[in-house]
Parts: sequence; C-alpha cells; structure tokens
Amino acid sequence: MILGRVIGTVWATQKDPGIENLKLLIVRYLDLDKQPLKGFDVAVDTVQAGVGDLVLVAKGSSARQTEQTQGKPVDAVVMAVVEGYHTEQLATIDRSNAARERSAAACLKGLQEE
Amino acid sequence: MILGRVIGTVWATQKDPGIENLKLLIVRYLDLDKQPLKGFDVAVDTVQAGVGDLVLVAKGSSARQTEQTQGKPVDAVVMAVVEGYHTEQLATIDRSNAARERSAAACLKGLQEE
Amino acid sequence: MILGRVIGTVWATQKDPGIENLKLLIVRYLDLDKQPLKGFDVAVDTVQAGVGDLVLVAKGSSARQTEQTQGKPVDAVVMAVVEGYHTEQLATIDRSNAARERSAAACLKGLQEE
Amino acid sequence: MILGRVIGTVWATQKDPGIENLKLLIVRYLDLDKQPLKGFDVAVDTVQAGVGDLVLVAKGSSARQTEQTQGKPVDAVVMAVVEGYHTEQLATIDRSNAARERSAAACLKGLQEE
Amino acid sequence: MILGRVIGTVWATQKDPGIENLKLLIVRYLDLDKQPLKGFDVAVDTVQAGVGDLVLVAKGSSARQTEQTQGKPVDAVVMAVVEGYHTEQLATIDRSNAARERSAAACLKGLQEE
Repeated sequence: MILGRVIGTVWATQKDPGIENLKLLIVRYLDLDKQPLKGFDVAVDTVQAGVGDLVLVAKGSSARQTEQTQGKPVDAVVMAVVEGYHTEQLATIDRSNAARERSAAACLKGLQEE
Repeated sequence: MILGRVIGTVWATQKDPGIENLKLLIVRYLDLDKQPLKGFDVAVDTVQAGVGDLVLVAKGSSARQTEQTQGKPVDAVVMAVVEGYHTEQLATIDRSNAARERSAAACLKGLQEE
Repeated sequence: MILGRVIGTVWATQKDPGIENLKLLIVRYLDLDKQPLKGFDVAVDTVQAGVGDLVLVAKGSSARQTEQTQGKPVDAVVMAVVEGYHTEQLATIDRSNAARERSAAACLKGLQEE
Repeated sequence: MILGRVIGTVWATQKDPGIENLKLLIVRYLDLDKQPLKGFDVAVDTVQAGVGDLVLVAKGSSARQTEQTQGKPVDAVVMAVVEGYHTEQLATIDRSNAARERSAAACLKGLQEE
Repeated sequence: MILGRVIGTVWATQKDPGIENLKLLIVRYLDLDKQPLKGFDVAVDTVQAGVGDLVLVAKGSSARQTEQTQGKPVDAVVMAVVEGYHTEQLATIDRSNAARERSAAACLKGLQEE
C-alpha cells in the first residue's frame, strides 16, 4: 500500500453509475519523512478519512475488495488512516546485521578451536 | 484514478471484436495545477466525455467494471468527468497539524500541572 | 491502452504450453508525435498486426480478455491496429475553455444587470 | 512481457506454503541491444530456465496462469526462453511508411488526373 | 517479486474491517547490492518477518493469494524471507555466451571442413 496525505476532494456529476455516492479524495504520496513526492492519486474513501489525514492507499483490483467498492470501476482506495509508524535506519540495521554475523563467526571460531 | 484532459480520439478498423463500438479517447495526464505531464493513455469512454474535458481514468482490471467494458481487452476507462476539485497546500496542512499538536501538548501540560 | 509501433518479432521453443501458436511481437512505445519512447514490450498479436504497424497494447489481466489469450500467462496484447488519431493542443483547449468561461461570466453579468 | 536475462537464484525457507518447491530466479531486464536496464525482478521459473538464459517475464495476475503458479502469491513468472528476435529500425520503418504514402498519393494524383 | 528490507511497522485503528489483525510492514526496496532504492511499500506480513529481514514482496492481486490476505483490500504482501541469493555478473555471462558461440562456430566450421 502507498503512504499518502489527503489534500483535497473531487466532484463529478457525469460519471459511471457504479461510483454514485462514493467520496473521491486527492491523495499526495509521501516519502518516509512525510515529504511530498511527485505522484498523487484520486482514491475512493472507505474509512471516513478527511483532508490532512495520513493514509494508506491500495491500488488495482485490491481497491475493489471493500464493501463500498466491490465491482466498481475504481482502482485506488483509502483503506486505512495511519496513526503512526516507526522505522529504523538501514545503516543501523546493516551495522546490527554485521555485528550479528561477526559474533556468529566468533562463536563458530570458538567452537572450532575447542 | 488518474486526472487527465481528453485531447483527442483514435480510430481503428482492424481490432479485437470486443472493442467494436467503443469510443477511444486520448487522455493526457495532468498535475494538480492542470499542467500536462509526460504520460498519456488511450482510454475507452463510458461517460460521454469529449475533447477538452477534465476526466478521471481507471486502469487495469478496474477498467472492465463498467457495463460497456466488461470482459473486453481494455485496460483504461474514462469513468467520470471532473467538475471541479479543491486542494489544500501540504504546507498549510502541516502548520495546522503542528498547531494542533502544540495545543494538545499545552493542554496535557496544563492537566499535569493541576 | 498504450500507443506503439510493431518493430519486430520474438521466437521461443522452450515455453509455457499456454503460449504455443501465439505470435509474439516487439512493440516500441511512442509519444503522440510518433517518436519512440524508451519503453517497449513483447505482446501477443490478436489482430494480424505486422512490423511497421501503429498499434494499441492492453496490459495486465486485460491482455487475457481475447479469444486467443484467455487463461494464458501473457500480460500484453496487441488488440487494435491504429488507422489514425487526432489531437488538439492543450494550449488551444485551455484558451477555448477560458473563452467559454469569460462568455459565461459576461452572460451572467448581463443577466444580473437586467 | 518483459525481456530479461536470468542472472541468479534466490533461496528462502521461511515462506508462504504456496511457493514451496518453486524455483525463484533473479531476472535483470534488458534493452533491445541486450544491455542491462536498472530494473530486475524475482520471478518463478516454469520453463526450466537457467542462469544466462534470455527470457520473457509475465507480470501481475498473468503470472498465475501456469500450472505451477495457479492460486499462488507470485507476481512474476518466466514463461519462455527466448531463442532469438528480430527488429527493424524505427527510422527504416518510417522511411518505408513515408515512401508508401508518397506512392499512394502519386497513385491517387494519377487517378484524379485521368 | 521485489527484493526489500523490512525497516519498520505501521499502525492504524481507523481502517477497513478486512485488515484487522494484519501486521503492516514498511519495506524499503533494494538493488542487488542490497543498497536502498527510492521506492518503499507498506506490505502485509504473512511469514513472521521482522525489522531487518531481507524479504520478497508480491504485488497486486497476487498479494491476495495467501490465507491471511484473501479477499482483502491489500496490494502488497511479504511472502518470503530471503536467506540468500547468488548472482553472476552479466559481463561474465556475456563472455561465456560469446565463448560458447565461438566454440559452436568453430565446431561447425570443423564439420564443414571435414
């Protein structure tokens, strides 16, 4: 799913009958520092998301796996409002992986020397 | 769904029987300032859209979820003519989020000091 | 659907039984001035397209909605040979939209002044 | 389908039961001069492809249309080993199209002058 | 499938009922030297992957082909933890292909001269 921020809404009267009564949100995609990326999407809201909310967007046929969007010509759906997320730096992960590998190697060496 | 402007039409006689009688539109994708992006698509019209119209395009299997396109080899459909849309600046949203967090923090601090 | 030019063919003997007897075309994607883009695809032919033809390619599950490709592991199909297309400049469209809005505003102003 | 070269294999023990016994290949995508592009994919092998082979990869739901991958969480499959391909230069195609149009125009002119 | 590293987790209370009880991981995509690419995804975990793990992500409708994700609005799933992978340099492959072709040609020449 893609991380984004709801920044607006779209209205349309001339539309496929399948999307009557669906709320259309404009979602700007974000990087992990919550800075805006170039991409954006118009997505159907299924979780009462509002402008300003940090959200997850599911795309493609997966966007039709909700009660509101089933069988409808929509390819993007807001299926969660993000409360928070936590990430670790890749550098930290790499150092810790390296440390683990070193201690495994040391352990193995110890075993072999016994 | 992707935001675009209908800029033309395509005609083809040698084609899959499934797309007989479908109108093929050329849609230029737009950014949120309605400036043209590089991308464009040939999409089936299902909402009587015409050249110059601001539209939404659904892609992939979702493009086949309309009465006209069901079971046909089409992967892009114009499923709405956009009447208008409203967006807020991400900067404004961020300031207002920050203000809300500050006032929540102040409120909490007040409660703790009581 | 994506606009492209058939520029070649591919042959393969070691392949999934599902694609026996299918003709595999190399399609170079084009911009609206018919200049080659970087992208290209290997697509199954279903409309007797030949090298040099301007074509439309449907992708993903939509590529399997033809008699020849149903239930087969193919994700791109040539489903139409393009005879021609017509586009209007976005600049022209924008001017004409602006003119329409001006005359609507003038008309409204006239009504209000009556 | 995408043109690529098998450059390696991946092994995993902790995995979805659906992919037990499937061979996972690393496929580097190529341009039409067989030079490596940036993109690569991990794809399930269904045609006994090996490292060094030039192959075609089908993506998305189409990757599940083989006996081995049906109903499994895989989105890329090697469904053919490419034996060879032939392409014509777009420039050559354009010249020949132009020539054909000129001779058609000349022919028409001749008819009109009769 | 895409190669990535799990770098974090996401939590959300306001969400589609279909994704209750699913663990949402942040996966940073990697190149073949395990260096981070720009892209990342929020993917459902189905294999008890944890932060720091090297994983494979399946996208689109294929992300719904696991017991946990069937029929749910999710378009990315971690379906394997990668234990290791091996790749050969394209340059090496090309040299070995060239050598094979040369020896095939030499062999053929030998046969023809006999």
